[in-house]
Amino acid sequence: MRIVNLKLKKHPYDIIIGRGILPRLGNLLKKIDIGAHAYIITNPTVKKHCAEKLQSILSSSGFSTKIKTIPDTEKSKSLETATAILKDIAKYDKRKRIFIVAFGGGVIGDVSGFVASIYKRGVSYIQIPTTLLAQVDSSIGGKTAVDLSEGKNLIGAFYHPRLVLSEISFLKTLNLRQLRSGLAEVIKYAAIKDGELFIYLEKKYRAILECRYAAMEFIIERCSRIKAEIVAKDEREEKGIRTILNFGHTIGHAIEAASQYESYNHGEAIALGMLVETEISKKLGLISSAKAARIEKLISAAGLPTIIKGCSFKSIIQAHHRDKKFLGKKNRFVLLTDIGRAKVVLNVPIPIIYVALNGRIKIPSSR
Amino acid sequence: MRIVNLKLKKHPYDIIIGRGILPRLGNLLKKIDIGAHAYIITNPTVKKHCAEKLQSILSSSGFSTKIKTIPDTEKSKSLETATAILKDIAKYDKRKRIFIVAFGGGVIGDVSGFVASIYKRGVSYIQIPTTLLAQVDSSIGGKTAVDLSEGKNLIGAFYHPRLVLSEISFLKTLNLRQLRSGLAEVIKYAAIKDGELFIYLEKKYRAILECRYAAMEFIIERCSRIKAEIVAKDEREEKGIRTILNFGHTIGHAIEAASQYESYNHGEAIALGMLVETEISKKLGLISSAKAARIEKLISAAGLPTIIKGCSFKSIIQAHHRDKKFLGKKNRFVLLTDIGRAKVVLNVPIPIIYVALNGRIKIPSSR
Repeated sequence: MRIVNLKLKKHPYDIIIGRGILPRLGNLLKKIDIGAHAYIITNPTVKKHCAEKLQSILSSSGFSTKIKTIPDTEKSKSLETATAILKDIAKYDKRKRIFIVAFGGGVIGDVSGFVASIYKRGVSYIQIPTTLLAQVDSSIGGKTAVDLSEGKNLIGAFYHPRLVLSEISFLKTLNLRQLRSGLAEVIKYAAIKDGELFIYLEKKYRAILECRYAAMEFIIERCSRIKAEIVAKDEREEKGIRTILNFGHTIGHAIEAASQYESYNHGEAIALGMLVETEISKKLGLISSAKAARIEKLISAAGLPTIIKGCSFKSIIQAHHRDKKFLGKKNRFVLLTDIGRAKVVLNVPIPIIYVALNGRIKIPSSR
Repeated sequence: MRIVNLKLKKHPYDIIIGRGILPRLGNLLKKIDIGAHAYIITNPTVKKHCAEKLQSILSSSGFSTKIKTIPDTEKSKSLETATAILKDIAKYDKRKRIFIVAFGGGVIGDVSGFVASIYKRGVSYIQIPTTLLAQVDSSIGGKTAVDLSEGKNLIGAFYHPRLVLSEISFLKTLNLRQLRSGLAEVIKYAAIKDGELFIYLEKKYRAILECRYAAMEFIIERCSRIKAEIVAKDEREEKGIRTILNFGHTIGHAIEAASQYESYNHGEAIALGMLVETEISKKLGLISSAKAARIEKLISAAGLPTIIKGCSFKSIIQAHHRDKKFLGKKNRFVLLTDIGRAKVVLNVPIPIIYVALNGRIKIPSSR
């Protein structure tokens, strides 16, 4: 078992990583005096395979539990779903000391955290991420959100969990595509902040896709530590430090939106986004061709897509212009200056973005 | 013009009080570098009488403006209204540096602040309260909220404005009932924290109900200062300090809910709540009969209700039990120990609450 502490000034919290650690949950929750009644938000798959175990562990420690299931698709990240959950919580919560448990992947974590942030002006919640992507990234750092049809993550709050518990044995239930999606975010951490991790991934990506325990524990701890350090320095993304975590996400979010959250899952879109943004870095002379090629090679070896299919150049550019990171007339990109180093660049010339993007599209468009 | 600073550690802000101060708004906003595009949320009455002036002041300082009107009733404090506003903001906000202006009474302030808190994980907003109640109380302190059918203010956030501008000339448009409603909150401040203010109100309540400028400026500054001091000490109501601002509100909210937000406006319900909670204080031996009588005399002189009509004992008790301030099996009341002093009391014996409440109901119930 490994513990990473996210050192927030006001409410620091632990990220606990290991195999077979779920039974410790009761004691962990009592130690932080979180409440007595667990409102668990999850998806049908996780409910089927893991909910009974979680409920029995909580019950045996004296907590009462209630399960709420929502579909694990981007469509669940809506104000309508949040509203339905909030009404359900209010019905359940008759003068209880409730807390919320986000039990699932990134969608569940985002919606649950948002709901926790606005119910009674904020109630406690914990994250029990069940996907690799959620364990290395989305469960940590307090960004919660739902979408509007006008844009992804447009509604939300910075609101931290009281505890993150990353039980590695949950990852055994993931299919290869889900593991690859998580690996995309791991590659992101390596690319922006950790050259050693990058070399490790070049050697060990197979072990990760086979879900070998030692490799999983290593990468989850490493990524959790990187994210915890960055978030502790710049909790609300006000100082330009946290921004580098968005590497691959500017173009990645645009691809997700342009393909209506159907052709690609989050990790796949981020992989494509990293390739385009690495290309921009190269064209601006920030990173060498050889290093850019290593990034492409790793993404390809991981089985992630390297060519954009099923959405047009135009639709991606349109979605990009709706991105909330776009401020005034300035675009903003996280670009690589080395493998393991990134910086924020404002006002990248439009032609460079267009050429880098067009080079990744299956049937390049001249429009 | 008077200025009260709310000394929050992270984001302190000014509350500016005076007559004819609205034209200064442009400069004030530039000084705090709030953005360029004002999304103004208001109600039909305020729009009719005051919006043109506000828009022309903002335009002449180079801000663009857009007006959104919502009805000024408790029904507007819903997630559905918030969702509709958020979608409208997202449509308006094409890479703009927007900020939100809450321009109206308490309902407008609560909804606008909530919307600002969750749009893009928080955008800047300012409060321009137009009612006495909003100027002395709800515009200050960062409590934002909407209701669920399960309870009032169940959804919300602590989220502070960047500026509060209390233009006293707006109060001239209020009718007597609205002035009385605001005066109820002023009486609350005096009762819990400011014996001198209480004496002032006993002498000057007529000047307030006639909306005399000097009296208005005096009470608005005095109340703003009390609230700013309390909020600075206990921003998120975690230390039991801010809680005393809820004097009259435990029973008051229950009366509002029991009468479905129709028979009484907020101030009237709070006046009734203060009478019941003063009676509880008296029965527990915390305050003398003579002082309790002075409170009733002032509330009555202000033209506020002293008898509960139109909702039953049972419906008030039921609503009280759904109150979010009710934790576990413990009730929690703010009770008076003097005129100008209050304390939080847990677990008030139920029979005392019942008798105090029953004594205020027109046709007392034995149920």
